[in-house]
Amino acid sequence: MNLQPYLDFTQELAAAAADVILPYYGKTDCGLESKDDDSPVTLADRGAEEVMRAMIEKKFPGHGIVGEEYGTQNADAEWVWILDPIDGTKSFIAAVPLFGTLIGLLHNGKPVVGCVNQPVLNQLLLGDNETTTLNGKKVCVRPTTKISESLLLTTDPIRPHKVHDGAAYDKLASKARTVRTWGDCYGYLMLSSGWADIMLDPILAAWDLLPVLPCLQGAGVTVSSWDGTPIAEFDAARGGDKMFTCIASAPAIHSEVVDILNGRA
Amino acid sequence: MNLQPYLDFTQELAAAAADVILPYYGKTDCGLESKDDDSPVTLADRGAEEVMRAMIEKKFPGHGIVGEEYGTQNADAEWVWILDPIDGTKSFIAAVPLFGTLIGLLHNGKPVVGCVNQPVLNQLLLGDNETTTLNGKKVCVRPTTKISESLLLTTDPIRPHKVHDGAAYDKLASKARTVRTWGDCYGYLMLSSGWADIMLDPILAAWDLLPVLPCLQGAGVTVSSWDGTPIAEFDAARGGDKMFTCIASAPAIHSEVVDILNGRA
Repeated sequence: MNLQPYLDFTQELAAAAADVILPYYGKTDCGLESKDDDSPVTLADRGAEEVMRAMIEKKFPGHGIVGEEYGTQNADAEWVWILDPIDGTKSFIAAVPLFGTLIGLLHNGKPVVGCVNQPVLNQLLLGDNETTTLNGKKVCVRPTTKISESLLLTTDPIRPHKVHDGAAYDKLASKARTVRTWGDCYGYLMLSSGWADIMLDPILAAWDLLPVLPCLQGAGVTVSSWDGTPIAEFDAARGGDKMFTCIASAPAIHSEVVDILNGRA
Repeated sequence: MNLQPYLDFTQELAAAAADVILPYYGKTDCGLESKDDDSPVTLADRGAEEVMRAMIEKKFPGHGIVGEEYGTQNADAEWVWILDPIDGTKSFIAAVPLFGTLIGLLHNGKPVVGCVNQPVLNQLLLGDNETTTLNGKKVCVRPTTKISESLLLTTDPIRPHKVHDGAAYDKLASKARTVRTWGDCYGYLMLSSGWADIMLDPILAAWDLLPVLPCLQGAGVTVSSWDGTPIAEFDAARGGDKMFTCIASAPAIHSEVVDILNGRA
């Protein structure tokens, strides 16, 4: 299967989204609203997704699309694009550049192309499960063997306590060398590029996770659900509504991280 | 007192430090070492402080200097420069751009000029207790009146538990709208520029805090020690060895933040 045309088109989508997003960055008048789940959305989120959807519909009219802002269409197609125009909207609205545009392509439900694009930092992470590149240069996870030497990332320091075993999370955090909330997609970019060792997401949507998987896989990162089981396949019937969990880390420490977070170590 | 020559020179120092730092940014061979307190230092930290010290000694030979990497000289002078070449070295060595160079000038022990320069993000925050500018444009704290609407920042999510009342910190964190570790000097930059509401530092050195104070003061931020008392004056006899604490926030919520962190609310 030749994925190159899709990899090329993914970069076109990322560039188009960045053109919409950047004029809003660092402005207080970005049309901020709260969604039903109290998460923020802006004119930049909406505009960037609109642009990407229009480009996909024009170039690949038979493909499906699952997007954070404008929902699901044709999700049982052979090829389905999965879009998060701004992953890390809380970062974006605080003028912190650690947000990104996520673009994924599923083939029969399996993520085969993934992209994290950081418009402010000019960092494009692109993966196809075999190879992952950052701005065109091949990258991979670093060979960390001890949690005590790790940089642990998660998006929100409170959320692990809300949806999982908080004491187990605290135990893991106390073992790590450094803990930071350089999270959202930036955490996965750091892990794939060899700058961090563990990235946790206690709960996340399909568009937060599936576009990242081909990057993690191509960079040699080990990934599982919070309970240690494989990440579930995309469920076309449910579109973007199925929630996921994720533990991504350097391979040698992954099973220990899973055991600690589940109270087994 | 005309501070303009010192404000101008501060920007020259910041630019010279950035020229040293940037070639090391995003590289894994930045000469990383651990100091006696297990905190990291790099060739970039050392080189940037060397350059700034040489510039000060040449231009103002009678001035004192207190620097993180090369110690204290002539600290009882009327004018003393206080330098942290890379505040946020843990961020720097992880290729995260949220670190900065801190430059302060004390007059008879009182901070009168302060600067946070972010070399990667091209953000220069400059304050003189009266006015604070970000890249030349006047900035100020935002008028937040409720902790429930606040963005709370701290450098390390674990440290408040180690050196203060951890349960009180957890109580404050649970009240905030969002909690992140966009800390070190970047947290003070965000607060001064109106993008965040609370920034906490459970423990920090003179060079971490004193250069930031004229920026916070000029931007209308309320600042105190962790226990609510004023920040202590610089102690020339102790140079950089005296440790500080800091709670900085929007004025209307400051006393409530202090009360919660000290178990009084």
